[in-house]
Amino acid sequence: MDTIRLLLVGLGNLGRRFCDLLAQKGPEVEARYGLRLLLVGAADSRGAAYDPGGLDPARVAALKEAGGSVADLPGVGRPGWPAAELIAQADAHLLCEASPVHLRQGAEPGLSHIRLALERGMHVVTPNKGPLVLAYQELHDRAARQGVQLRFDGTVAGGLPAIYIGQRDLRGAIVHRIEAVPNLCTGYILELLADGLSWEEAQDRARAEGVLEADPSFDLEGWDAAAKLVILVNGVMGYPARLEDVDRTGITALSGADMVAARQEGRFYKLLATADRLPDGSVAMRVAPVPLPGDHFLARLGRKQMGVMYHTDIYGTLMAAIDEPTPLPSAATMLRDILDIYR
Amino acid sequence: MDTIRLLLVGLGNLGRRFCDLLAQKGPEVEARYGLRLLLVGAADSRGAAYDPGGLDPARVAALKEAGGSVADLPGVGRPGWPAAELIAQADAHLLCEASPVHLRQGAEPGLSHIRLALERGMHVVTPNKGPLVLAYQELHDRAARQGVQLRFDGTVAGGLPAIYIGQRDLRGAIVHRIEAVPNLCTGYILELLADGLSWEEAQDRARAEGVLEADPSFDLEGWDAAAKLVILVNGVMGYPARLEDVDRTGITALSGADMVAARQEGRFYKLLATADRLPDGSVAMRVAPVPLPGDHFLARLGRKQMGVMYHTDIYGTLMAAIDEPTPLPSAATMLRDILDIYR
Repeated sequence: MDTIRLLLVGLGNLGRRFCDLLAQKGPEVEARYGLRLLLVGAADSRGAAYDPGGLDPARVAALKEAGGSVADLPGVGRPGWPAAELIAQADAHLLCEASPVHLRQGAEPGLSHIRLALERGMHVVTPNKGPLVLAYQELHDRAARQGVQLRFDGTVAGGLPAIYIGQRDLRGAIVHRIEAVPNLCTGYILELLADGLSWEEAQDRARAEGVLEADPSFDLEGWDAAAKLVILVNGVMGYPARLEDVDRTGITALSGADMVAARQEGRFYKLLATADRLPDGSVAMRVAPVPLPGDHFLARLGRKQMGVMYHTDIYGTLMAAIDEPTPLPSAATMLRDILDIYR
Repeated sequence: MDTIRLLLVGLGNLGRRFCDLLAQKGPEVEARYGLRLLLVGAADSRGAAYDPGGLDPARVAALKEAGGSVADLPGVGRPGWPAAELIAQADAHLLCEASPVHLRQGAEPGLSHIRLALERGMHVVTPNKGPLVLAYQELHDRAARQGVQLRFDGTVAGGLPAIYIGQRDLRGAIVHRIEAVPNLCTGYILELLADGLSWEEAQDRARAEGVLEADPSFDLEGWDAAAKLVILVNGVMGYPARLEDVDRTGITALSGADMVAARQEGRFYKLLATADRLPDGSVAMRVAPVPLPGDHFLARLGRKQMGVMYHTDIYGTLMAAIDEPTPLPSAATMLRDILDIYR
């Protein structure tokens, strides 16, 4: 039995559910994989907790569910202690970086957390898009230099292993074109609009379902889809794509009437992200709402589904999708990544 | 640059195309992965050829395309030499076993080839279902004992990485249910029947397209789908499924009228393979034609598409499909497997 000493930074929706998973799946992971996943440190916006003997993940999850902070954990909580200090001082093998995405703030604090953990020789697992979008190559180079692994399967399309399929199962191929519907929120809202709901009703429903962030513009303006596309193009096409090179249109200019009319013609609006390899070797990237014909693989995605298509030279066209009724699969990508590192 | 010395047994549709791939992709594989894939031996039904310095894969492919045998290759061909002798005597790192599937003959000669290669310490890569269906656990145990890899991604649903997704991307999960449309031929014929063609016309078209084998009963009676289901259940659910435990119904009793009527109701017949984990831990397996509702992921598969769905506890429902206009992706699974072994 190997013990893996974990740090978890960020205890929002994903971090909290990951604690639930650690509690729920711990015995099974020990039995099936011979790995004891020991959460030794955790941090949220109010402070951190560190216990070399291991924190109780169920207790951390319950505390967060009740609106508390790990900083208040008796004996081990340290109010005001920043996550960076935890990463700098803890004895750990692996950092799970699940702090919120802040593309406009230079992907901080996530980017600094990841850099620091890599420099300290920790593996890093993250569903946080920001650092990968802004510093894909730098972070990969750092990980390689340190001989550690950087995994980020959860950054694209929630629990869909889009990155893994693209990197591992397409080895030897040239990927000519990627098409993806990687954002759940916009798909959800577009479906409701096509059902005849107003924009206001659709947004309210999305907010009540927890699929709309407090600041909805990140999703609705296509930034989230563009960020995911940039990661896919870097990771799968091996091209140094940048966010500013994505031709990006959000869904806010669409009317419910557009949506209803499209459906009557057998078409389905999706916020489609595409990447095309051009003859000069560069890659053209676009995010825009597109009325897909009914026989397009991505047209039929349900309300809480995301998908990706890889058009290749030797593996035909590979298509994958996920139905994700709750954020649990997104949180579980951290478990997938960890188990892949220690396979 | 590492040189990987390959043997290829079986030079039918897949083996020949794999030779094409070696010729076409060789320089790229060297540049991207630092691997030189050197075909040192090949065997077909009429004999074998062995050259420690390497056979020319383009020449082997051209020879087979023209109806010849590797046994006739000047200087290196050995007419009448059985593949087993090649495997027993060659100096090689890896066997690609692509001989025809003969489930009714105890999966021979493929099974013996694989056993022999594993015992000689070679890795084995195979799209041949027979040996995996009949001896899944035995072959895995042999490979583990020898410290070598056994890969068989091409056994299920052609170029779709169904096994890889199920084994690697679902780590930590319980797979409650698998649904798959893993056979291309039956999907192709059912689509033509729904378009109004007669059984005879549909079979003729399928034969002309090369998707119907000389003995079509293996596909049409559901044996192929059942065999693939058995491999999926062993590989992904970790349950020792056997072919005789599959409740199997083929498509031959269906009429074109059934198909047309179903489509008018918005339903789509597919030869569906399902596996359900039962409360006692066992797995119930079934292969049967099912009129799927239009919103079922597998209902909309096109004529040359196959797909799989994994219903899991923590990763939601994962769905994957492939559009495979030619057998190239099926042949390319051997390249995928090799590059995964030497990643």
